Amino acid sequence: MSIEAASTVHVDLGERSYDILIGPGLIGNAGEAIASRLKGKRMAVITDEHVGAIYLGPLTESLAAQGISVHPLTLPAGEKTKSFAHLMTVTDHVLDAKIERNDAVIALGGGVIGDLTGFAAGIVRRGTRFIQIPTSLLAQVDSSVGGKTGINARQGKNLIGVFHQPDLVLADSDTLTTLSPREFRAGYAEVAKYGLIDKPDFFEWLETNWRDVFAGGDARIHAIAVSCQAKADVVAKDERENGLRALLNLGHTFGHALEAATAYDSARLVHGEGVSIGMTLAHQFSARMNLASPDLAARVEAHLRAVGLPTRMDEIPGELPPAEILLEAITQDKKVKSGKLTFILTRGLGESFVADDVPASEVLTFLREKRG
Amino acid sequence: MSIEAASTVHVDLGERSYDILIGPGLIGNAGEAIASRLKGKRMAVITDEHVGAIYLGPLTESLAAQGISVHPLTLPAGEKTKSFAHLMTVTDHVLDAKIERNDAVIALGGGVIGDLTGFAAGIVRRGTRFIQIPTSLLAQVDSSVGGKTGINARQGKNLIGVFHQPDLVLADSDTLTTLSPREFRAGYAEVAKYGLIDKPDFFEWLETNWRDVFAGGDARIHAIAVSCQAKADVVAKDERENGLRALLNLGHTFGHALEAATAYDSARLVHGEGVSIGMTLAHQFSARMNLASPDLAARVEAHLRAVGLPTRMDEIPGELPPAEILLEAITQDKKVKSGKLTFILTRGLGESFVADDVPASEVLTFLREKRG
Repeated sequence: MSIEAASTVHVDLGERSYDILIGPGLIGNAGEAIASRLKGKRMAVITDEHVGAIYLGPLTESLAAQGISVHPLTLPAGEKTKSFAHLMTVTDHVLDAKIERNDAVIALGGGVIGDLTGFAAGIVRRGTRFIQIPTSLLAQVDSSVGGKTGINARQGKNLIGVFHQPDLVLADSDTLTTLSPREFRAGYAEVAKYGLIDKPDFFEWLETNWRDVFAGGDARIHAIAVSCQAKADVVAKDERENGLRALLNLGHTFGHALEAATAYDSARLVHGEGVSIGMTLAHQFSARMNLASPDLAARVEAHLRAVGLPTRMDEIPGELPPAEILLEAITQDKKVKSGKLTFILTRGLGESFVADDVPASEVLTFLREKRG
Repeated sequence: MSIEAASTVHVDLGERSYDILIGPGLIGNAGEAIASRLKGKRMAVITDEHVGAIYLGPLTESLAAQGISVHPLTLPAGEKTKSFAHLMTVTDHVLDAKIERNDAVIALGGGVIGDLTGFAAGIVRRGTRFIQIPTSLLAQVDSSVGGKTGINARQGKNLIGVFHQPDLVLADSDTLTTLSPREFRAGYAEVAKYGLIDKPDFFEWLETNWRDVFAGGDARIHAIAVSCQAKADVVAKDERENGLRALLNLGHTFGHALEAATAYDSARLVHGEGVSIGMTLAHQFSARMNLASPDLAARVEAHLRAVGLPTRMDEIPGELPPAEILLEAITQDKKVKSGKLTFILTRGLGESFVADDVPASEVLTFLREKRG
């Protein structure tokens, strides 16, 4: 049987080009999809305890049917797994499994497993083949595409890592049926982001059709495919984030600061929720800087609220640190250049741009006011 | 004052191109050489306790005179510093020093400090600017050129790392005057290697002039410059070691196995000594496989012995593990492809080539015989 995915997105990066297959049933057919593209017969599979309990069995069976020996490693679920200690565990496992250059390391899980595993694959033997099987909406539309990998540091999120492109991405839409509503919504924040960056028509389509996207089926696969294509287009133009790619950080500078302020405690805030609040703040701050209308900020906030996402800092349970500390978290963010603050702001619906000379004092006043 | 180095080698890697300055007095003028090329005003300097005691002062002074703030970190000397634990110490230091994208991380030391620091620079913020100030002959002619960085793993040497090119290399020949004769000889093994790979004239020149190279002065600077140029030429053609670059591993597959077998104990064996024994073994094995004459192997061994380098396994103090264990160390080596053994062998003086289908059984028999 040949593998037919409902949708295929090609990421065009010269000799590092690869396909993203999107659709139902891909994990059960992973062996064929992989064996038709890679020669290797040994694969290390890195997963977490939640995802592994459901999908490691079917994946292993599918790989074994192609004569591929599977070397699984199951890690704790959660953001704290993106650490140096777990990175060492993964590289040690991959080396013990004697994964060679034609073999591959497979990430089976959400963004945490994908980022950690991709980093490990990027540094074992200075670069080992790597396959992403993202099982969360967030990972399917964002973190599994584009080659950014990494772990968190004491000083901030994703501050340590490498660019390492996968050889193949299998986005099995069946895995999304087991996500909690909260997790699905968090991933949806990144879907909406692509509309807000430079696809006003897509954002309008989401305003009309978001219930179908949440229900599953064709609208969901369409939303994932448009998102992957949007990210692939940006990455193809700017693989190493020297310019354009920064647009993908819309909502992320505020969002990362809030994640740091809540100590990456997912009970309080998950990444996509931080991005939702961050995108709202970015539009409000754009209005305050007279770049866009307050109506646009209200429209964006209304859509994010409609799907059930948080949009205000005071929705985060527990106490937030003072605005000064939030600003400090922003200035330690990796997008800082020579002490100036860089934000993604907007001039209208789907008209985002990189503003790299934002006065810290304006941001501080704004944060004080919005923190309440 | 403009900086005039005795010799400059340009490494041509498109937008990642950089210069290697070679000559006396470069550390004292490092500030000017760096400030004329990089805009950043914050630099983390990573060094070890031996090198730092001599050169950290003059380097800091030279950078401070250009208004550059210096954030030094001194680590223990020795191969054991190429570990995950020290990698974490360096990345933590660089993040705490708030080194941004226009700033740089400087490696001041030998190959260990260069490899570790380059790896840290390669992963902080997914790539931070990096300057090499190599203070050993080995680092000047080999490890500081070409962008290979990394640490050792339990399973073998340099198994974890990234390709990360420096922005500048300052090879101050004055630093070689404080090397022990043993250290200088170890670096010389890599100099001789470039002749044996594809520069028979250079090898002949070394046979005649090696005493002048050891004495210092112009012959030494010439030998360093030819070596850097030889490596730069190979790297420019094959940055990521997909083919040609493997030639630089002449002597290294046997050498790494011997280093692993002696637990990286520098009292027993240092890298260059392993390479010297490894190059001799590679020429002897080439003769055994009827690729080259036994006379050539004898000639190569005679030159390496003349300068005082070891060429036989039984010169390594202490007991070596059995040949089977040495072979195992070779097969875990990162140059393995699909279980076949890859060696750099030769067809004549300066006629090395990549042999990627060497039978393990032949190697085992050879190792048994040579181990004695």
